[in-house]
Amino acid sequence: MSSIKGLAISRRIRRTPFTERVEKLGVQGYSIVNHTLLPKAFQRPIEEDYWHLKNHVQLWDVACQRQVEIIGPDAARLVQWMTPRDLNKAKIGQCLYISLIDHNAGMINDPILLKLGDDHFWLSIADSDVLLWAKGLSLGYGFDVIVDEPDVSPLAVQGPKAEMLMEKVFGPSVRKISYFKFDTVDFNGNKLFVSRSGYSRQGGFEIYLDQSHLGLALWDSLWEAGQEFNVAPGYPNLIERVEGGLLSYGNEMTRANNPLECNLDNYCCLDGSIDYIGRKALQRIAEIGPKQRIRGVIFEGAPAPPCDRPWPIIAEGKQIGHTTTAVWSIQLGANLSLAMIEEDFWNTGQSVKVKTPDGLKRNGTVAKFPLSFL
Amino acid sequence: MSSIKGLAISRRIRRTPFTERVEKLGVQGYSIVNHTLLPKAFQRPIEEDYWHLKNHVQLWDVACQRQVEIIGPDAARLVQWMTPRDLNKAKIGQCLYISLIDHNAGMINDPILLKLGDDHFWLSIADSDVLLWAKGLSLGYGFDVIVDEPDVSPLAVQGPKAEMLMEKVFGPSVRKISYFKFDTVDFNGNKLFVSRSGYSRQGGFEIYLDQSHLGLALWDSLWEAGQEFNVAPGYPNLIERVEGGLLSYGNEMTRANNPLECNLDNYCCLDGSIDYIGRKALQRIAEIGPKQRIRGVIFEGAPAPPCDRPWPIIAEGKQIGHTTTAVWSIQLGANLSLAMIEEDFWNTGQSVKVKTPDGLKRNGTVAKFPLSFL
Repeated sequence: MSSIKGLAISRRIRRTPFTERVEKLGVQGYSIVNHTLLPKAFQRPIEEDYWHLKNHVQLWDVACQRQVEIIGPDAARLVQWMTPRDLNKAKIGQCLYISLIDHNAGMINDPILLKLGDDHFWLSIADSDVLLWAKGLSLGYGFDVIVDEPDVSPLAVQGPKAEMLMEKVFGPSVRKISYFKFDTVDFNGNKLFVSRSGYSRQGGFEIYLDQSHLGLALWDSLWEAGQEFNVAPGYPNLIERVEGGLLSYGNEMTRANNPLECNLDNYCCLDGSIDYIGRKALQRIAEIGPKQRIRGVIFEGAPAPPCDRPWPIIAEGKQIGHTTTAVWSIQLGANLSLAMIEEDFWNTGQSVKVKTPDGLKRNGTVAKFPLSFL
Repeated sequence: MSSIKGLAISRRIRRTPFTERVEKLGVQGYSIVNHTLLPKAFQRPIEEDYWHLKNHVQLWDVACQRQVEIIGPDAARLVQWMTPRDLNKAKIGQCLYISLIDHNAGMINDPILLKLGDDHFWLSIADSDVLLWAKGLSLGYGFDVIVDEPDVSPLAVQGPKAEMLMEKVFGPSVRKISYFKFDTVDFNGNKLFVSRSGYSRQGGFEIYLDQSHLGLALWDSLWEAGQEFNVAPGYPNLIERVEGGLLSYGNEMTRANNPLECNLDNYCCLDGSIDYIGRKALQRIAEIGPKQRIRGVIFEGAPAPPCDRPWPIIAEGKQIGHTTTAVWSIQLGANLSLAMIEEDFWNTGQSVKVKTPDGLKRNGTVAKFPLSFL
């Protein structure tokens, strides 16, 4: 059944090639990303799914990571124009995490770029209509490209047993795909792209299904082969993501933020050797330095409610930042948030107070980002 | 409480200035439009909300109808470039229903355009990031405009008693606002835009709150004044919308459809007297005629399940169209769908079969669109 209490369903909110299986496995809740269903809860509590992800292997319906295809003689020019990351050395078969920024250096999206050919790219996007951005730019600048959303639906296979499962289904060649690279595999006579990537720190792959009608067969193959590996349905796990310091567009950053605030300094070419939208704005920001940055904040007390809006973070009696996401960290046994913190207060060990919606002002500490708090 | 079973909440899915009141009134479900919460169910069944909307007055949190502001010397040029509707005679204070199309004449959105000044426009948008489209175009073409999303959150007041309620809160001048016009009203010393418009056929207004911090006060004023008119929380009512033949972007049409397929012929200038993106493509389509159009289809049997994907429509043994939305029509006492139907079968009275997900092929009839089936 397609109806989920709490979420009004319509054709506008797109189903995926895998939705039928996800429903059969008892999906309990969704988020919406790129006008598409993203399963976010099954029958076990998130904590159990967390441990399962860390010990076994999960199938994630992440078809909502839509691909924006840019193809044509000016494709490389347009893609470089859209990002501060220097793409000169990008190789065919490589995945690159990039930020897209506007003329004010505001974040438009933070996709994975897949270089399929010298004039052929996919942007595997977070939640904003990059298609419209790229199309608008290409029309206006007169770039000789075709920008479209192909029939491509990623299915993620995540967890420490992902490699064994993938090998069983696609053969030993998948082992040769190294991190943030992609290659093709054979599935029932069809060539599918597979990358070693995914929105967790537990390792795994993303399969770019490019024929929707094969979705159920692909899911079933992985599901059946996965029985010996204790396969389960899963989803980008909020606890694991925050512990791992992975950012989420729309949560950690919006168009009001620049890539330096998101600690993406290493992905920004600032020496003027390449040009891109927002270069001058970003160089100005770099010159004086960003005024706030994403940090981790650990704070005390019972598990806080779901963080559905920024919570104020206070120091020296004034607001000096806000949470962007918060979870009860299983590893820390404490509340852990990602947070945007002002310059004077972003150093590790800084004492702060986090104002949670239950009215409490909880004692907290700024932790180095990413990962060092683990 | 902000957590709704079935919908994973995060900051990325934006709350509105009215969410707190909507929660207090027992919201039961949401849809997501423009990365923002749209309440879609309260405690009564949709059928009761339907009758209430037709007899009384409702407050709708439609802050998800985000405004894309285009301002500057080239604003009128950019807006005309984005739409096939001839805007030469548009007047300040006027609302215009327009389609936005790409270079293939594919629908990008179908907003309401508000002309605030000769070089100042708002696009009150359906569910796609028109901001990125307009920004991309303006950068590429070098238009001298600023494109932004201002802090503007529409609150709709809909139903036959809307005018009485609005008069009570804002004074008798609101009566002078005619259909698809807007003007300013005073609210506690603040100037707010108000249009006579809304996503129902029951009449009413939309208030463009431009200071989020006034949201609760605005809601409370309308709520308290509305007690004598039996005010209730509401939402764009699916049954009333389909009976009224109102289209929904992402449901009735996507980028795969052109405005003629959506019966928007009267909003398309095809004589070449104005130029816009997609003009040539649209003229070509007009010349040979669209191959499919939106129609109503009435079909028999018990109420069909929610239409969360296109259902095939069959005639002469082959598929000749698909549903885009379907409801149990209270007025007809029958299933009623909006549907995209091929040319040879779109005439009123055409017999068809609708293949619903319960496995039935139900007898149906094509009805003239819009409204004549009522």
